Amino acid sequence: MDDDDLRRGQPTVHKKWNEAIAVLAGDALQSFAFALLADPNLGAAEVRIKLVSTLAEAAGARGMVLGQAQDIAAETAASPLTLEQITELQSNKTGALLEWPAHAAAIIAGQDPAPLRAYARAIGLAFQIADDILDVEGDSSKAGKALRKDADAGKATFVTLLGLDGAKAEAARLVAEAETALAPFGDKAQSLRDLARFIIARDR
Amino acid sequence: MDDDDLRRGQPTVHKKWNEAIAVLAGDALQSFAFALLADPNLGAAEVRIKLVSTLAEAAGARGMVLGQAQDIAAETAASPLTLEQITELQSNKTGALLEWPAHAAAIIAGQDPAPLRAYARAIGLAFQIADDILDVEGDSSKAGKALRKDADAGKATFVTLLGLDGAKAEAARLVAEAETALAPFGDKAQSLRDLARFIIARDR
Repeated sequence: MDDDDLRRGQPTVHKKWNEAIAVLAGDALQSFAFALLADPNLGAAEVRIKLVSTLAEAAGARGMVLGQAQDIAAETAASPLTLEQITELQSNKTGALLEWPAHAAAIIAGQDPAPLRAYARAIGLAFQIADDILDVEGDSSKAGKALRKDADAGKATFVTLLGLDGAKAEAARLVAEAETALAPFGDKAQSLRDLARFIIARDR
Repeated sequence: MDDDDLRRGQPTVHKKWNEAIAVLAGDALQSFAFALLADPNLGAAEVRIKLVSTLAEAAGARGMVLGQAQDIAAETAASPLTLEQITELQSNKTGALLEWPAHAAAIIAGQDPAPLRAYARAIGLAFQIADDILDVEGDSSKAGKALRKDADAGKATFVTLLGLDGAKAEAARLVAEAETALAPFGDKAQSLRDLARFIIARDR
């Protein structure tokens, strides 16, 4: 939908094939995700159906689809979005699906999902802020996609709203918040702490 | 994907809104279908997860998505499809999802799915043959969509392969086959018999 030619240095599906195949690949992958959740190895049927309903919620009209529609609407909005609106948009567009695996892990383990979801919500937003920073500071040959698109389109981003330093400070604050949410898990959660720090340190 | 302006006399989503919204509406509806299957009113979790896995199979890369991809590939194929190829394409493109509710009903009822699936397979193919006949003989104001598209595109259809009379005979044969499959259900299946007959009698 952003009509980009590249992702991770590879041609996008609609470039390599065509738009119809790109749409069909998306449809097939969505079905495949639900097929995977039906796998008996994931646990009791009660667990698997709960994974299905939470994924459907995160991916659908109150999750990712809503966020993507809000993003499209913002392109033609009369005025740039506010910080509150961008945060809500991103929380739907990428946050819901980033939060879901954390929620799913808690469902499979039969544990309270709150700490892992708080972790995932914080790194999801940090990821998007890091993306906005990369869009301004990054090297497109490393990023493997076109950069400077948001600025060229006059879109509000975390960088236009908070400034570059403000955006970096907010991303760092969110990573600290994510680490705090992991406290109950102690050393066992080290790889999740590393992941949170990587998200704002990455150059692609 | 066929770029039609009308469906059932109404503007298509990509005409009324735009392509991105049409793709997102499809994505949201697919998630919503799986969300509905998680509803506890449908039965035990074992039943619901079975509905999820069979729907994912019917909709995905070995069902509807495959059939649609085969249909797109046929548009640029060196030679028109054979009867066997068209039958396989339609069995994937529309048959898999028409057969699924019959399969689902049997899963919910805890019955052997074979008779209802045989019924659904026959009416699915009859439906497609009736569509090809309507494309040639129909009135586009009644059909609520553009007609004569397949012939104009030089595509093989059941009518080009069997002739108009041959296609009508095959559709009637399939409806009789569908009615035979319903024999075990006696009078209780009268509405399904009516549906099978309606499929080849409709003018839209």
